[in-house]
Amino acid sequence: METGALPVALINKRRVLDNICRMQERARCSGASFRPHFKTHQSLEIGEWFRDLDIQSITVSSPAMAQFFMANGWDDCLIALPMHAGAVPVYNELAPSRNLELLTDSVVAVQAVDQALQQRVGLWIEVDAGYQRTGVPFHNLPALIELACVIEESTHFELRGLLIHAGQSYSCKGKEALADLFADQMRRLNTMRTALVEAGFDNVRISYGDTPCCSGLDSLTGVDELRPGNFVFYDLMQENIGACEEADIALAVSCPVIGVYPERSQVLIHGGAVHFSKESLTYDSGLTIFGKVVENQLNGWGNPLSGCYLRGMSQEHGVIEGTEDWVKQQKVGGVVTILPVHSCLTMNLLRPDFIEVG
Amino acid sequence: METGALPVALINKRRVLDNICRMQERARCSGASFRPHFKTHQSLEIGEWFRDLDIQSITVSSPAMAQFFMANGWDDCLIALPMHAGAVPVYNELAPSRNLELLTDSVVAVQAVDQALQQRVGLWIEVDAGYQRTGVPFHNLPALIELACVIEESTHFELRGLLIHAGQSYSCKGKEALADLFADQMRRLNTMRTALVEAGFDNVRISYGDTPCCSGLDSLTGVDELRPGNFVFYDLMQENIGACEEADIALAVSCPVIGVYPERSQVLIHGGAVHFSKESLTYDSGLTIFGKVVENQLNGWGNPLSGCYLRGMSQEHGVIEGTEDWVKQQKVGGVVTILPVHSCLTMNLLRPDFIEVG
Repeated sequence: METGALPVALINKRRVLDNICRMQERARCSGASFRPHFKTHQSLEIGEWFRDLDIQSITVSSPAMAQFFMANGWDDCLIALPMHAGAVPVYNELAPSRNLELLTDSVVAVQAVDQALQQRVGLWIEVDAGYQRTGVPFHNLPALIELACVIEESTHFELRGLLIHAGQSYSCKGKEALADLFADQMRRLNTMRTALVEAGFDNVRISYGDTPCCSGLDSLTGVDELRPGNFVFYDLMQENIGACEEADIALAVSCPVIGVYPERSQVLIHGGAVHFSKESLTYDSGLTIFGKVVENQLNGWGNPLSGCYLRGMSQEHGVIEGTEDWVKQQKVGGVVTILPVHSCLTMNLLRPDFIEVG
Repeated sequence: METGALPVALINKRRVLDNICRMQERARCSGASFRPHFKTHQSLEIGEWFRDLDIQSITVSSPAMAQFFMANGWDDCLIALPMHAGAVPVYNELAPSRNLELLTDSVVAVQAVDQALQQRVGLWIEVDAGYQRTGVPFHNLPALIELACVIEESTHFELRGLLIHAGQSYSCKGKEALADLFADQMRRLNTMRTALVEAGFDNVRISYGDTPCCSGLDSLTGVDELRPGNFVFYDLMQENIGACEEADIALAVSCPVIGVYPERSQVLIHGGAVHFSKESLTYDSGLTIFGKVVENQLNGWGNPLSGCYLRGMSQEHGVIEGTEDWVKQQKVGGVVTILPVHSCLTMNLLRPDFIEVG
């Protein structure tokens, strides 16, 4: 794979390693174990970069992703999607001689999956961080205790603790907001943990997940396990939240130029919804973008080019609005490098053919 | 692949064949050849369904997709993305002993690609349908003639004609609006064709592409080639435009239920941005959706369930807002079937594991 023929992901390995080491150190300082989420890269090769840093435990976002990584030597894996009876064949395939962990918020699911499981697995109780996706609500201590009791009575589950993904951190701006959110989440989680301990449950660990909180705070005291994912690459969304600097972003996309239109200050690229997805970012200024143009460099990319943004897309085409000067310099057949809004969805589309740069 | 473990595409083959036959017949009645766009399904198996109906010529949306299909016996292929010098190695790989066709709106691209090509290829002039993505604007007859002359003078290109994708049909509502758009496009295209003929160019064909116009009109008089893609499956967007009936939609997605929340009338499914993409549809009522829930059936799906919509999503999770009664009937571990907003992006993510139903 070379740049120029097709859109291709560029990955700056040095930045990836820096991002991993920084997060690993933050987990260590917080007294937490580290179970990074591999949904962001979904790559065996990048997985090896983690392994070289002595990371053995991972999180994935689907049973299929667990199959992929566990078939390739990752023997300690949490599937961070509520378990359900339909996926039991996968759980049974994966659990023997490995540490498979699942999560749930449902008595019905515990009973149904327990009946069909053939092996013991670890089970986390998912807590709703307050934005009502999945999980037991903070206030519902009776439901929490009931669920823990059903897990305790089951044949195949071993209760690991409380797991949360504070997804509302994606609407935060800056470290103070992230710190406030984290403190609030931990206060509520500790209330839940205390209720469980008082009901006789031991070793109730707390697993904490979102990249903004895990990146924006110097320490995450009280957390027993850290499972962020996006931090491996970061992206424009994380930069806008304040979870990273632009210089930490480790994934860019090289896109062929397919049209140059100085009369409307636009450059068209081969790079659309099947490469970036349709995730957009709206800045406080009201500007909505799908990506930001950065300087091309021989072995990677440089600084963002002021006033040049990916502003629209269809399936394969991307529309860049640029400055008059920049547009005039572009040529059909050239290449433009773009920082994506959301690296997880971009890498999901562009893996496994990436180019290592930097 | 079975339903229940993972999100999986269900494809109703009878509807697919009906959709293909109807479009093939419309091309025949319009006196146009038929070059369906394979970007929607991207499947060799579904390609064979076309081949069984005696369809030999195809359109694809990228050099990589041309490699995929041409390596599998499709010897007459148009790459409907502006050509550029970076992709010449792919063009040179594909062109020998086959009919490869490209498109352009750029003198720079013609000159650069011509220099590096090793074979003769067919070349279309892309016309900007008026929404300023790519193409020569209707009014710019001097640019059109100049481009045609550069193509004529080239070593490797054979001018095929004028190619258009009237993407603004996606904002139309109903057959009358589509007919008005088509008539306007054809009037302008014919002005361009006349200018080319007067400048001495022969055999200037017109290639017309978007699914709404190709589906919504009984006949497309004046068109020489039809290249719609989405019609093979259709989707909620096309239904909303009036290009199809709900009963024509041939692709649905079966998603495991991972959470049931009667207190907020929501069901959570395993089915998110990595399965549906983030394409949404806003109805005139103001309701924005990512999909519509349909009745589960043993070998496919039934009617839409009133008031049950996919309303939100993250990477793997989908949030369905449903009626009180319907939500109460759902169970973690069950399955929900969803009609997607945009079948091209959904199939791009869910291929190649689909289940044939119906």
